[in-house]
Amino acid sequence: MRVGRPADRARISDSSVRRLSGYYRILGELREAGETTVSSFGLAQRAGVTPAQVRKDLSFFGQFGKRGTGYAVAPLQGEIRSILGLDRRWKVCLVGAGNLAHALVAYKEFARDGFEIMAVFDNDPAKIGQAWNGLRVESVESFPREVRAKKIEIGIITTPASAAQETAELMVRSGLRGILNFAPRKLFVPERVNLRNVNLAIELESLSFALK
Amino acid sequence: MRVGRPADRARISDSSVRRLSGYYRILGELREAGETTVSSFGLAQRAGVTPAQVRKDLSFFGQFGKRGTGYAVAPLQGEIRSILGLDRRWKVCLVGAGNLAHALVAYKEFARDGFEIMAVFDNDPAKIGQAWNGLRVESVESFPREVRAKKIEIGIITTPASAAQETAELMVRSGLRGILNFAPRKLFVPERVNLRNVNLAIELESLSFALK
Repeated sequence: MRVGRPADRARISDSSVRRLSGYYRILGELREAGETTVSSFGLAQRAGVTPAQVRKDLSFFGQFGKRGTGYAVAPLQGEIRSILGLDRRWKVCLVGAGNLAHALVAYKEFARDGFEIMAVFDNDPAKIGQAWNGLRVESVESFPREVRAKKIEIGIITTPASAAQETAELMVRSGLRGILNFAPRKLFVPERVNLRNVNLAIELESLSFALK
Repeated sequence: MRVGRPADRARISDSSVRRLSGYYRILGELREAGETTVSSFGLAQRAGVTPAQVRKDLSFFGQFGKRGTGYAVAPLQGEIRSILGLDRRWKVCLVGAGNLAHALVAYKEFARDGFEIMAVFDNDPAKIGQAWNGLRVESVESFPREVRAKKIEIGIITTPASAAQETAELMVRSGLRGILNFAPRKLFVPERVNLRNVNLAIELESLSFALK
């Protein structure tokens, strides 16, 4: 079994990676249900795509499964886990200690995936010092120092839209490699930094499309 | 300009709808920046897809744009708005009055898209009666009555995973047509009900894929 060389990875589209996340979850469910193999047809049906799409997505990363017997659930899940970079721990911090940050700190899926929230920052004196699930909300002033000390690599922005760009710049200056932005504002970061935007309205839009 | 017949809509993939949401936002930004036209190349570059993909996504819904001059920003945005079902108001309720619900109630993009949060429900006596952005947290017991009285069509589940399936069933029994589920649990609903699942970890996974 061969995992794609780094040179291949840049060619993989975002939607491909998103589907891999979906397969990863489905394989986890199958595993919990005691299933040991799954056909590309079965995986496709659960993921809502075509079997050809499943085979194509997985083919980027090498040969999985055998004609006639399908994919072995546990090994394929392990491979996708490694492809997605979930076979290691990622140290994460949050800036913007509002309700969304509170919800994210309590979100168990992050920890299960290896994303460890190490620190939460805010510039509101009323919030600094609050205890959250074993974390203490820290001042944004200590951000660069804490990021270095705790070897944090990924920053999550949960500030209001108006503070999002300056927060991104602080994260870039402090050496973070990846940023996940929940604020509804287009952000600009240098190319070497990976930025992903989460828009909570998109799923509602897909629902309204379907209901119309 | 021809908008797709209802019969066409079922053929549109989820990822196509997701890209339409993206184009919709980009066109809004271009409009705010005073741009009146955009090429499929320009739109594609901003959306991170190929120009062929843009033309294909839009072709499902009729002929937009002219060879050489590109797309007219405002009319195309209006068309996509209508395609996505955002040219009307949707009445929405939330069940599970935790931090995530609190963040969603304050999320201005929903209202801008026409999603109006009409009610929030919980079964915790300590939460029932709390005032949230002009709403009052209501008892789950009053759910069917309130849904009917307020003509609510879409329900958002922000309960713990353990309560998500029974909440979905309550929503189905009460006549909701669409459900957006934030709880990390696979839910089962009748085919006539549209269900979308939001997984907050997926974007972090795409980030870890890129950083690996």
